[in-house]
Amino acid sequence: MNSSSRLIEEAVDQVSSLPGVGRKTALRFVLDLLRRKPEEVMRFAESLITLRDNIRYCKTCHNLSDEEECSICKTPRRDNGLLCVVQDIRDVMAIEGTGQFSGRYHVLGGIISPMDGISPSQLNIDSLVERVAGSEVKEVILALSATMEGETTSFYLFKKLSPLNVAVSTIARGVAVGGELEYTDEVTLGRSILLRTPYESSLKR
Amino acid sequence: MNSSSRLIEEAVDQVSSLPGVGRKTALRFVLDLLRRKPEEVMRFAESLITLRDNIRYCKTCHNLSDEEECSICKTPRRDNGLLCVVQDIRDVMAIEGTGQFSGRYHVLGGIISPMDGISPSQLNIDSLVERVAGSEVKEVILALSATMEGETTSFYLFKKLSPLNVAVSTIARGVAVGGELEYTDEVTLGRSILLRTPYESSLKR
Repeated sequence: MNSSSRLIEEAVDQVSSLPGVGRKTALRFVLDLLRRKPEEVMRFAESLITLRDNIRYCKTCHNLSDEEECSICKTPRRDNGLLCVVQDIRDVMAIEGTGQFSGRYHVLGGIISPMDGISPSQLNIDSLVERVAGSEVKEVILALSATMEGETTSFYLFKKLSPLNVAVSTIARGVAVGGELEYTDEVTLGRSILLRTPYESSLKR
Repeated sequence: MNSSSRLIEEAVDQVSSLPGVGRKTALRFVLDLLRRKPEEVMRFAESLITLRDNIRYCKTCHNLSDEEECSICKTPRRDNGLLCVVQDIRDVMAIEGTGQFSGRYHVLGGIISPMDGISPSQLNIDSLVERVAGSEVKEVILALSATMEGETTSFYLFKKLSPLNVAVSTIARGVAVGGELEYTDEVTLGRSILLRTPYESSLKR
């Protein structure tokens, strides 16, 4: 597919570099932008440039932040005794969305994955250990994906954190709320039986 | 979902304005851009601004063009006797992709659709009639979608063009090449029987 317009081709080349966007979808996006006023396209493009030029990592939790320290780390209205370890900003957003967590976060910036060449030294693990050691943190919650890489990373962190005087927990694995037993995979169902919880605690929330 | 970063929120707002892109997908695109070098993001954004500021409509065929007249209209190496009428640039690209058409194009810029409030006067129809009248165009090929709106527009154009000394044809409707009869819808199959072609002409290409 060739548009015979060099300008369109260049924009499509750029847009199709986004994850999961092919040239046809990119062309659809580009034609949509062409239907807007030049000022609007300018605003669209500038929001990306401004973001890239001004975003940084929070010095405390390593989450993406507009300032030196992010708003979650800055607020005094959160529990310093609870620290939740996550992979990236999307997990922070997902957990914040539940409204069930009032502690602090620590963003690893990835997950241990020999397949993708990501080793522990590339993640924010040393700063996690430093942050927990001798602090008021009483419990570290490992909130990583229930994948092979996630479990490996959790185990690595558990080993790193266990010499410190801190409880280490992991978010519950089990049948999804609203999920039917019949359609739950065997591994999840099996673990949900092994890791059963006292009925009273299931009434919480 | 809130990222607690105003910069990210603004970029996600902008990106999620693209057709079919929700906030989750927009965030994925934005995080992907954040992983690139600032120069790369600059190049990405500038390709959109440059496009929007410099693109125009070809004065002859009304296709999107980098210059006053597009490269297809400018080249002398095409058949001036054949004019193909299409809805927009995507159709030009699709037909060019087949390598089966060597004539010129005329881009309507849309399709008659009372439901969407698009009337004939908003399309490049007057300029089509002017262009065909008293020119060397011998045949106008209507290459519009096989939808209700496409058929309506084709009929309208046929009425407009029939007083002129020009043949008007429409692209063939029928069973797709590689398509199985069993899975072809009844209307298409019905028309493919009514509009059957001499066997010899089906051997062309």
